[in-house]
Amino acid sequence: MVFDSSDHSDHEQVSYFTDPETGLQAIVAIHDTTLGPSLGGTRMLDYASEDAALEDVLRLSHAMTYKAAAADLPLGGGKAVILGDPDEIDRESLFEAYGRAVDCLAGRYITSVDVNSGVEDMDVIARETDHVVGTSDGLGDPSPITAHGVFHGVRACAESVYGTRSMDGRDVVIQGLGKVGRSLAEELLADGASVTVSDVNDDAVEAFAEEYDVETVEPESVYGQSCDVFAPCAVGGVVNDETIPQLDCDIVAGGANNILAERRHAAVLREQDILYAPDYVINGAGLITVAKEYLGGTREEAYEEAAALGDRLLEMIELADERDTTVLDAADAYAKNRIEGGERTPTILS
Amino acid sequence: MVFDSSDHSDHEQVSYFTDPETGLQAIVAIHDTTLGPSLGGTRMLDYASEDAALEDVLRLSHAMTYKAAAADLPLGGGKAVILGDPDEIDRESLFEAYGRAVDCLAGRYITSVDVNSGVEDMDVIARETDHVVGTSDGLGDPSPITAHGVFHGVRACAESVYGTRSMDGRDVVIQGLGKVGRSLAEELLADGASVTVSDVNDDAVEAFAEEYDVETVEPESVYGQSCDVFAPCAVGGVVNDETIPQLDCDIVAGGANNILAERRHAAVLREQDILYAPDYVINGAGLITVAKEYLGGTREEAYEEAAALGDRLLEMIELADERDTTVLDAADAYAKNRIEGGERTPTILS
Repeated sequence: MVFDSSDHSDHEQVSYFTDPETGLQAIVAIHDTTLGPSLGGTRMLDYASEDAALEDVLRLSHAMTYKAAAADLPLGGGKAVILGDPDEIDRESLFEAYGRAVDCLAGRYITSVDVNSGVEDMDVIARETDHVVGTSDGLGDPSPITAHGVFHGVRACAESVYGTRSMDGRDVVIQGLGKVGRSLAEELLADGASVTVSDVNDDAVEAFAEEYDVETVEPESVYGQSCDVFAPCAVGGVVNDETIPQLDCDIVAGGANNILAERRHAAVLREQDILYAPDYVINGAGLITVAKEYLGGTREEAYEEAAALGDRLLEMIELADERDTTVLDAADAYAKNRIEGGERTPTILS
Repeated sequence: MVFDSSDHSDHEQVSYFTDPETGLQAIVAIHDTTLGPSLGGTRMLDYASEDAALEDVLRLSHAMTYKAAAADLPLGGGKAVILGDPDEIDRESLFEAYGRAVDCLAGRYITSVDVNSGVEDMDVIARETDHVVGTSDGLGDPSPITAHGVFHGVRACAESVYGTRSMDGRDVVIQGLGKVGRSLAEELLADGASVTVSDVNDDAVEAFAEEYDVETVEPESVYGQSCDVFAPCAVGGVVNDETIPQLDCDIVAGGANNILAERRHAAVLREQDILYAPDYVINGAGLITVAKEYLGGTREEAYEEAAALGDRLLEMIELADERDTTVLDAADAYAKNRIEGGERTPTILS
């Protein structure tokens, strides 16, 4: 049930693709192309049901519209799911068939990597369609650029809270030493911050602490660690009813997706005078990078646009102050304003 | 539920379109494009549910694949439904939005008239996309060409049963004096047949009988009327468990859609030594005409291709004899053979 689904919010086009030869079953949701062709990753999951897959793709494509709009990109929101067990398929023929499906959408949807789909799969898709980013011919790993955007987002938060963007002498706790967490730590250290790192992988923490001048904290103690900025860069849902009372920081701003367990936690943080930078805004430089790949441009330009994310976030923080609301609400309003200022003409964009 | 629907038979692409401004909710089903872009009408109905609409469009698009294949056309099968009450919409803006939706499919689906959609609506759609036929700029009313195809189909049946295609002296009962029924009567009379007509509209029967040398029969007596050929050209489902015992003819061949109440009735007719010409084959010249409009050609060429339908039907009748099966089975096998001989490459066809 598409039209009747509770997650359906006027999605322009939701397409089901089937290829009996390869067993492909995919749903591509194009939520909104007001600002440009829709862009979003393709995830492959062995969903419990077709309805569960539909729910996921409707929700995620809607979020991509807001993410692209909040990043000032000339792109709309889309997402795709391939239904199936990644371990039980002929990956190459499946992604070839899927590439033909993407091509059938004539450029209204641009795909990229996501859960259980990687650079190699994008290369297979690229044999069949031009509407794919994140290939090995692309602009390379977006993670350092994502981190660069997070860094400038953190600085914007500091400007709002402390009156200066300089991180000199600020205490920052980084949760998660993945690619984004590590790059963020490097940038903060270079800007003079005191950095404390934490990861469930002890070896990763140890290796990082050997190379860089950082403190470390056990994963279970990370929320209560006193600091200026808490930067979640690992899993989602880490800001929740259990962790919020432990927080001893002025700012929550990191690269992870879905940092809040629930939307209402943005208001709870605000009540406690903690500034929360909406995840989809501050981690938007990954999208900025793949957009640059699609629209044409260099990695250097992507870095520049990632840096500009800071000013945009500050604008949203100021808007939130004006409206006496959360920055999350202000970010949504900012994105909505961009979309509503555009003209929605769902035709082929080339 | 698309993939899980009992009517889903590996449809290449099923797309849901929404346009909040006009209230458009449409489903376009592209069943198979092995032989060419899919073509099929758009019907507007106030469906009881989204599932009912999906069921309809899946079933109808599948049938169009077979209809196009059996007509030797370089086309695949597609169909579309617009969900809504035709009396409660702003028709023009709705069909404009729908035209944009059709355009988004990049020529993989070509639309045309169907239940509750007419030439004027196609003209509106044509403002937004090239992928529409049946406009006022088209090849004109296909009904006389459909009748021409039915006429040649009837002659092919006569060849099989009586050893000659000439209808001279043959008794034909035509049920329904719509455009196709009337044209068919004219062609049969010109070929020397004795024609008996019937219609639920008494005035239509009377007017026709004044103009042409035909007999008439009451609607309730039409099935039992002794004749060589019974030609249903009105509603569907007229050949059923109740009417078959009444039939006193050698051939059932007419222009109506869904002549059989159920598929098994093809076998019942065969057991009674009545030759049944599959409706989707013998009424295929309407599709031949709109295909000609899309692919480029003249009305005269459409008439010629409609006439060629007779030889193809005879081929199917011979195939049925060889295989000791119904002509319906043979027609399906003929169509399937064409499709399986092609290479299914669902990409944009331009």
